[in-house]
Amino acid sequence: MHLKAPEHQVAGHIAKDGKPGPLVDDKGRFFKPLQGDSRGEIEVKFYESFSSNTEIPDHIRRYFPVYHGTQAVEGSDGAAMIVLENLLSQYSKPSVMDVKMGSRTWYPEASEEYIQKCLRKDARSTTVSSGFRISGFEVYDHKELSFWKPDRKLLNGIKVDGVRLALRKFVSSNTLSDTSSKPDSAFASSVYGGSNGVLTQLLELKTWFENQTFYHFNSCSILIIYENESIHDDGARAQVKLVDFAHVHDGNGVIDHNFLGGLCSFINFVRDILQSSDESTDN
Amino acid sequence: MHLKAPEHQVAGHIAKDGKPGPLVDDKGRFFKPLQGDSRGEIEVKFYESFSSNTEIPDHIRRYFPVYHGTQAVEGSDGAAMIVLENLLSQYSKPSVMDVKMGSRTWYPEASEEYIQKCLRKDARSTTVSSGFRISGFEVYDHKELSFWKPDRKLLNGIKVDGVRLALRKFVSSNTLSDTSSKPDSAFASSVYGGSNGVLTQLLELKTWFENQTFYHFNSCSILIIYENESIHDDGARAQVKLVDFAHVHDGNGVIDHNFLGGLCSFINFVRDILQSSDESTDN
Repeated sequence: MHLKAPEHQVAGHIAKDGKPGPLVDDKGRFFKPLQGDSRGEIEVKFYESFSSNTEIPDHIRRYFPVYHGTQAVEGSDGAAMIVLENLLSQYSKPSVMDVKMGSRTWYPEASEEYIQKCLRKDARSTTVSSGFRISGFEVYDHKELSFWKPDRKLLNGIKVDGVRLALRKFVSSNTLSDTSSKPDSAFASSVYGGSNGVLTQLLELKTWFENQTFYHFNSCSILIIYENESIHDDGARAQVKLVDFAHVHDGNGVIDHNFLGGLCSFINFVRDILQSSDESTDN
Repeated sequence: MHLKAPEHQVAGHIAKDGKPGPLVDDKGRFFKPLQGDSRGEIEVKFYESFSSNTEIPDHIRRYFPVYHGTQAVEGSDGAAMIVLENLLSQYSKPSVMDVKMGSRTWYPEASEEYIQKCLRKDARSTTVSSGFRISGFEVYDHKELSFWKPDRKLLNGIKVDGVRLALRKFVSSNTLSDTSSKPDSAFASSVYGGSNGVLTQLLELKTWFENQTFYHFNSCSILIIYENESIHDDGARAQVKLVDFAHVHDGNGVIDHNFLGGLCSFINFVRDILQSSDESTDN
């Protein structure tokens, strides 16, 4: 089995200080190292529960990576890894964004130390103010014919206006590293709009979150992916996926109001861009 | 002008230690003392802004008390008071519940001391877990022919199951102080259900909150009122009202995801009671 580091990881843990990072194979699978303490365990427990939960409708299941169990991986010191669908294997020039959902990333069951760490990070980012934060993104630059990824430290410091700008850059065709030019939002309607676009998918997820009380998706991210190669021909193939379940807890009969509130806020940001790009097309 | 203390106040500030409490007159008006520090000021600013905001649709405006300006009130040491519509003046035997919305009551602009105080209170109550907490309620007891109000300290300590029980008690006809009998939810369909019921009103509010970015209603309550005198004849006259705007801030183009998340959770609790009372009627 030939394994290599994924090309387009925009957020989350990477190989560092001898700890293994995620790997991909050439058969469309993604290998995620089990995180230390209870996090890896919680994530496996979630995937096991979710994949066997018969009350998850199929149209919702497609927003989650397919789970292939866990596996000890050679070359990674035999460490156990979660085997998932590689969400990017069918994309040639993908733009990817990771959006961490919720107006808080902590939860009552966590340790006091973890809660304090989260509270500080949530307040510094747009988590508290906007109900989500952009953890990372990578865009294919149609002028430079290469991928562009903003510095993660710069991204951590952005406020609400920075979020608006990033969501425009993510769907723009003009040079992205040039801060003096305004993003043209050229792909807004193909990526965010339409019956297969991001907004439609987010609204479908929202309807589910208004009722589901199985899981509370603490510190979970929405991944947005689209294809740049074919964007002028057979469409952007935009996909919305939920990832990172190391802090998922039982809903105990209560909906995940923290995720849902953030999702509604994110939907409003996306809708704003679609509406303003409609206006500029009309004029 | 003859003023007296309101009969059915279930939460909020009351006359204490020489500080004036709210008063009502016999013309359907409610006088609310301006709270100290910036809170009174913020509440007046909100009412002035809201009552002159032409972008608030009429069907939403009816969920807020009518504002009649501020007035210095004799007998209250001439203290300035906010003059509002008395929401209970048309009710003879009202049941009233105060639900404080949101999975947090603090906000980034507040002082560190206030934030810490809120964090502790939010974690002890169901605010963090459920996205709202019941601050107080008073029910008309059809067996005892008198009003019943749970002790506020007891109410502060309830968890999710306690919230479910309280929401059933609030619409039950059997003796409420008797903890051994199960609440019969006899009025669930007349109060929570129907085209004029609580659920319909909450859903209408939700639609507005999914789009409005004018205000963030931090620490704001939903008041639920219904009439017991006429409940078997001309209906419960259930009303949902938003009250307490001492911590409202500008939305800055972002929806109030904190209030909205809590509202969606509260809607789910109410819907659960309606569905289970439907089932018990069917059987």
